[in-house]
Amino acid sequence: MNRRRRIYEGKGKILYEGPEPGTLIQFFKDDATAFNKKKHDVVDGKGVLNNRISEYIFTHLNRIGIPTHFIRRVNMREQLIKEVEIIPLEVVVRNVAAGSLSKRLGIEEGTVLPRSIIEFYYKADALDDPMVSEEHVTAFGWASPQEIDDIMALAIRVNDFLTGLFLGVGIQLIDFKIECGRLFEGEMMRIIVADEISPDSCRLWDTTTNEKLDKDVYRRDLGNLVEAYQEVARRLGIMNENEPLRPTGPVLVK
Amino acid sequence: MNRRRRIYEGKGKILYEGPEPGTLIQFFKDDATAFNKKKHDVVDGKGVLNNRISEYIFTHLNRIGIPTHFIRRVNMREQLIKEVEIIPLEVVVRNVAAGSLSKRLGIEEGTVLPRSIIEFYYKADALDDPMVSEEHVTAFGWASPQEIDDIMALAIRVNDFLTGLFLGVGIQLIDFKIECGRLFEGEMMRIIVADEISPDSCRLWDTTTNEKLDKDVYRRDLGNLVEAYQEVARRLGIMNENEPLRPTGPVLVK
Repeated sequence: MNRRRRIYEGKGKILYEGPEPGTLIQFFKDDATAFNKKKHDVVDGKGVLNNRISEYIFTHLNRIGIPTHFIRRVNMREQLIKEVEIIPLEVVVRNVAAGSLSKRLGIEEGTVLPRSIIEFYYKADALDDPMVSEEHVTAFGWASPQEIDDIMALAIRVNDFLTGLFLGVGIQLIDFKIECGRLFEGEMMRIIVADEISPDSCRLWDTTTNEKLDKDVYRRDLGNLVEAYQEVARRLGIMNENEPLRPTGPVLVK
Repeated sequence: MNRRRRIYEGKGKILYEGPEPGTLIQFFKDDATAFNKKKHDVVDGKGVLNNRISEYIFTHLNRIGIPTHFIRRVNMREQLIKEVEIIPLEVVVRNVAAGSLSKRLGIEEGTVLPRSIIEFYYKADALDDPMVSEEHVTAFGWASPQEIDDIMALAIRVNDFLTGLFLGVGIQLIDFKIECGRLFEGEMMRIIVADEISPDSCRLWDTTTNEKLDKDVYRRDLGNLVEAYQEVARRLGIMNENEPLRPTGPVLVK
């Protein structure tokens, strides 16, 4: 396992060469970071939870015809994915004001937006991922106008699905982030959903109490991050409450 | 004069009730501000220069069929304008990287952009005029998609004209800001260019020396602001070098 080639290491995940061409292994680390790594901790078990929650969501996205890079989960911390050319944008969909939107536009957190808003942030740690508009995206060639249309259509579909999924388990989807990539199949290219969808990349509030069940628990020191993520997994029926968050004997391969 | 009703006072201008319905008087102050008023000075003569330069530009925009609020200059510091419903956006057109674009996206000042880029900033002093995208503009109802199209078409036409105008007098147009408003005429509404266009709202670099002839002279303490603005006026053939920047006897009414 240690000899395989590492393709990329990010703040929360590592990508390794996959078992066959056009595939990669996506490894979920336990590292929690916020404010562009100004805050950094290791949260035991987070990677296992995100791997499982993201597996669950991407499996269902694939089933309803929203194309993603996800192929299958390999073990507690890893999934097999399709290799894509990542578009250097964080695509944020917001249903309710929170975080940077509240701060930048002076809208109280929790305010329902007039309609869902899609934002683009340019992925550049050295610049703190600045917000950009379609004008920047097309002028600098990060994506074409047609690709932006495809990305926005995917983002809206993912929002529809996730809103319903979480609503069904008593959670309000405040906002979330996706990344997209270009998948090349022969002569064809299409835009698909990549990266992960987990409580690291969503804001999830309990419908009744507004309790936060997402990474804001870490960003804002609101309590135990793993317990919040376990609650999300439990409500989605993904993990047995007694299921271990670390290997107990041989690594579980599903 | 002092009894007329003041409609609005901004950082650089005051709007008074006009002589007939649907008109206003726009008064150019000598106040120079930067960084959302964190820096503030009174620069004797600046208002007179901006009034004259803006008059010159708006007159020519009107002539080539780009609709503006400008009717005519009244005196050294005032112009008669059409009353419009201001759209709360600063519309920035950039040809060369400078200022906040350079900082946010890590592009060296002076780098020619792949193509002109239009940006929107939400006019809200308390929020430091945050950059917004079309998504925010339409979701919050600041302008409709059709109005955004109209605004962008106007911005491009203004950029074409100003680029040519300044090129002819040895000045490179780096970027500029306009504001737009809704003009209601009977049943009709159309978007027109409002506010001012002056060295306060443009970045103007000498084509040969790259010397700055705009508000950056003030923002960055690069020299004498009035001399820079006088140089722009002189090159445009607007003001006689000996023409006074303050009343000498009775106020000049043209």
